[in-house]
Amino acid sequence: MLQTRTGKRTGAASVKIAVDMVKEKLITRREALQRIAPEDLTQLLLPSFAPASRKGVAVLSKGLPASPGAASGRLCFSAEEVVERAKVADAEWEKEKRKKDKSKRTPKETFLLVRTETSPEDVDGMHHAAGILTSTGGMTSHAAVVARGWGKCCIAGAGDLQIDAKKRTVSVDGRKFSPNDVLSLDGNTGEVLAGRVKATVPEKISGDFATVMKWADEIATLGVRTNADAPADAKRARDFGAQGIGLCRTEHMFFDPDRIIRMRQMILAETQADREKALKKLLPFQRKDFIGIFTAMKGLPVTVRLLDPPLHEFVPHDAESQKELADELGVPVQKIKARVAALHEANPMLGHRGCRLSVTYPEICVMQTTAIVEAAIACKKKRIDARPEIMVPLIGTKEELRQLRELIEETIVKVKKAKKYTGKLNIPIGTMIEIPRAALTADEVADVADFFSFGTNDLTQMTFGYSRDDVNTFLPEYLKANILPNDPFQSIDVDGVGQLVDIACRKGRTTNPKLHLGICGEHGGEPASIRFCHQVGLDYVSCSPFRVPIARLCAAQAVLEE
Amino acid sequence: MLQTRTGKRTGAASVKIAVDMVKEKLITRREALQRIAPEDLTQLLLPSFAPASRKGVAVLSKGLPASPGAASGRLCFSAEEVVERAKVADAEWEKEKRKKDKSKRTPKETFLLVRTETSPEDVDGMHHAAGILTSTGGMTSHAAVVARGWGKCCIAGAGDLQIDAKKRTVSVDGRKFSPNDVLSLDGNTGEVLAGRVKATVPEKISGDFATVMKWADEIATLGVRTNADAPADAKRARDFGAQGIGLCRTEHMFFDPDRIIRMRQMILAETQADREKALKKLLPFQRKDFIGIFTAMKGLPVTVRLLDPPLHEFVPHDAESQKELADELGVPVQKIKARVAALHEANPMLGHRGCRLSVTYPEICVMQTTAIVEAAIACKKKRIDARPEIMVPLIGTKEELRQLRELIEETIVKVKKAKKYTGKLNIPIGTMIEIPRAALTADEVADVADFFSFGTNDLTQMTFGYSRDDVNTFLPEYLKANILPNDPFQSIDVDGVGQLVDIACRKGRTTNPKLHLGICGEHGGEPASIRFCHQVGLDYVSCSPFRVPIARLCAAQAVLEE
Repeated sequence: MLQTRTGKRTGAASVKIAVDMVKEKLITRREALQRIAPEDLTQLLLPSFAPASRKGVAVLSKGLPASPGAASGRLCFSAEEVVERAKVADAEWEKEKRKKDKSKRTPKETFLLVRTETSPEDVDGMHHAAGILTSTGGMTSHAAVVARGWGKCCIAGAGDLQIDAKKRTVSVDGRKFSPNDVLSLDGNTGEVLAGRVKATVPEKISGDFATVMKWADEIATLGVRTNADAPADAKRARDFGAQGIGLCRTEHMFFDPDRIIRMRQMILAETQADREKALKKLLPFQRKDFIGIFTAMKGLPVTVRLLDPPLHEFVPHDAESQKELADELGVPVQKIKARVAALHEANPMLGHRGCRLSVTYPEICVMQTTAIVEAAIACKKKRIDARPEIMVPLIGTKEELRQLRELIEETIVKVKKAKKYTGKLNIPIGTMIEIPRAALTADEVADVADFFSFGTNDLTQMTFGYSRDDVNTFLPEYLKANILPNDPFQSIDVDGVGQLVDIACRKGRTTNPKLHLGICGEHGGEPASIRFCHQVGLDYVSCSPFRVPIARLCAAQAVLEE
Repeated sequence: MLQTRTGKRTGAASVKIAVDMVKEKLITRREALQRIAPEDLTQLLLPSFAPASRKGVAVLSKGLPASPGAASGRLCFSAEEVVERAKVADAEWEKEKRKKDKSKRTPKETFLLVRTETSPEDVDGMHHAAGILTSTGGMTSHAAVVARGWGKCCIAGAGDLQIDAKKRTVSVDGRKFSPNDVLSLDGNTGEVLAGRVKATVPEKISGDFATVMKWADEIATLGVRTNADAPADAKRARDFGAQGIGLCRTEHMFFDPDRIIRMRQMILAETQADREKALKKLLPFQRKDFIGIFTAMKGLPVTVRLLDPPLHEFVPHDAESQKELADELGVPVQKIKARVAALHEANPMLGHRGCRLSVTYPEICVMQTTAIVEAAIACKKKRIDARPEIMVPLIGTKEELRQLRELIEETIVKVKKAKKYTGKLNIPIGTMIEIPRAALTADEVADVADFFSFGTNDLTQMTFGYSRDDVNTFLPEYLKANILPNDPFQSIDVDGVGQLVDIACRKGRTTNPKLHLGICGEHGGEPASIRFCHQVGLDYVSCSPFRVPIARLCAAQAVLEE
């Protein structure tokens, strides 16, 4: 008797074998699709360290493999530092590119953002970093979620790192590293490596991979969209086969240094008139962003979510930054401190955010709608087929959506009139279903919604009563004791959260048979959850650009399993 | 034609008229019960300022009538101050009581707690105060909820008060008041009055009031229990006709100065052994509390809820108190600061609390169960019919309750054995239904539960995604815009939260037809919500002692409305 073991194949091999076997008529296309493990495709899409290049490199620490991929770079200890150093590197790279002999070019400098944890204020720096390394937080921490969304390598919760952000050093395993030292992150294993390791660049979707994707699309009934907030991400997702944007968040658009100051001005305003003045200055930025995204996705739907996070995420919380802001705006620092204190919430997840902001500050909703409609008209005038959809977050009652829909529709009419645009726009208006009450009363809500998009991250938080930011205090014990079969933020909880999704789909379609149904939570890119989405009858899933091919395969497999 | 208007009758008059009309055979008992407005009874149960005694007294400010009643007293600006001054007043009153001539006695000094807002650390001081006055917070702020639970007068959110806790003064309407000045609070109107106003002591349940209550009980099918954490409250509720305790919170029991130190020791412990050591010292306190409550409620059920709040509510958050604690425990203050920081949560409402504490620290559950069982045995040995029920809070999955039930049952067996008690105890073990997921999967949960008690405060928070502590940032606008017909924390939201209650009742009874069903959220004392509880088929409501007679009347009215 021979001892056997499952051979470990690379993603590329797994795809090639499947296609070859079909060519040789050993298996059918359907069988081929069923033989490919969805996660195998990850390797085809993200950079990774080839085992050979890792040889002899010291492993300094092991954290959670929060977002796959591989990255090396010099160390930055604040978001601002990444932005600044990346700008310098960009300028140098422009010079290098002028050298005709490619072999003589100095490679472009890359950076890692090294932090205890990250927060929304760091997003700009995270975006400019090649990889992110944190010493605290779990698989659903801010750093992990944002990085996965971008397909950016991230290691979270590497607890034995001692990060001194003031001295700009990180100590681990008896060694100390400074800003000019280089570390490498293996996002597939969570390993932090000393020095630079050469990464293998991923295959594009071509050859056998493209063949498999074509087969999958022929069988799948569930559509696949992407979550993307910037033209570059949108384009990449489109290259990966996304059939539209299912979630375009608008909050990240405000963190750019030119913009955050206007946002803060708006938040600090004491009257509606002052708020409108600050918002007016934000409008051109938003319009430009939307033109970029609509252009990248021309001919495909782009679901834009109105502002969602609580306002305190946009204001500085430390004394130094508050002082800076006061100087910049020419107001007493006490005023800033008072406003920040007033915005403080005991449970921000359950606080003044989502559509509640649009109800209390309708001018924000009006500005965002105006930017969307103006961008759509600008595109149409250039014969670019822009297809925006407006999504209102955090709806809990029909009346909230009815009133906001009225405001949005009025604004669309006004902007068309102001721009003297007489063509058709057809902008669907819908809502995220992320509050249990909205799912339970979906028949009422669907009466004023063109579409539902399940925000299963928040729906999971509220259905379980788990805060994603705090769940790591007990989740590991829950998994160990088999109270939960897996992390419900990674794979959808079919019995509880899934039940609400099912209730909402069925009830919603009773009053609105044309209701379009999708999902835009992180679950939209996870195989078991995608299977559930197919079974429950959703029209599409929306996921990170890098998970689009995985979702296309899973959508086909869900049909084949029936 | 004559001009008519609804005559304003006092509660006493309304009851008397109803009884008189029955005596004169003008109306039936059923009609009489339907004619009494439930809120009219409030006046019969709490002290109030007679209009005559208020004459000429200046109204300084108007806040929210957060908890009805009336109180006068000198001003205390911290919980500790109330406790200290009340102790002195108690001692002086003991001396006064020795005077045989009652007219020569100096009346007992009373105190008002005056704070910007209150937190759980203030509970001891709140308990010793005659009334509570805050400058911030709404009808569901900490001060308001705790005060209503105790039937203690409270005015919340009197925003024009300027409270200087350091200087111990409160300024309002151009006047400044110091610790020895007296103010009066009218909890029925929210008015803050200058100086002392004579309060009218309420009628006991006797005479016509008792007659009406007897008629109500004959018709009602819904039982009425009370929420009470102390023997005095339990006794009062029993006098008001409560048929048991539906919610005995155990966390308030830890805030007494003798006990909080042990609790903090437990929280700071680094090993299970150290935690058990600290818990062992808390055990006798808990046992004593339970003996008191079981004795006061002998023959009636007492539903004890295991520890619910997150541990950070028990540790000091300001530097000074942290230093004091460090000195008291003989540990470096850094250790305390580090533990407090580690306990911090982004969204404590959705954090490490409720049964999650029992899963991660089973020794807390064991200590509390031991105290309950030892207390029951001690009572039984004195022929006091103790009837405890153990309620596990915040269950979200069947497996959580299955494992904790096993631990509780094992502990009961162990304690009986250790105490050599061979009699029957019959302690039902059940859960609160306050997490949407528990309601949705109630058929599974009921398989391991003897009873469900709907915790509609938290269920409302999670079903709507509203934090009770933060909801005042947008709720007023929601009510103004008619998005919500009323505050869902005051009157149950039948369409959403009520739907979950209904689902849980129906599903729960499919797997466990004997399942006992109750409600212990604040809604249990609110007329419209009580009607809903009757319609949905609950066995009982549980409410504050002072709302028990109101609930008895409402329970009868619900039958009569059918």
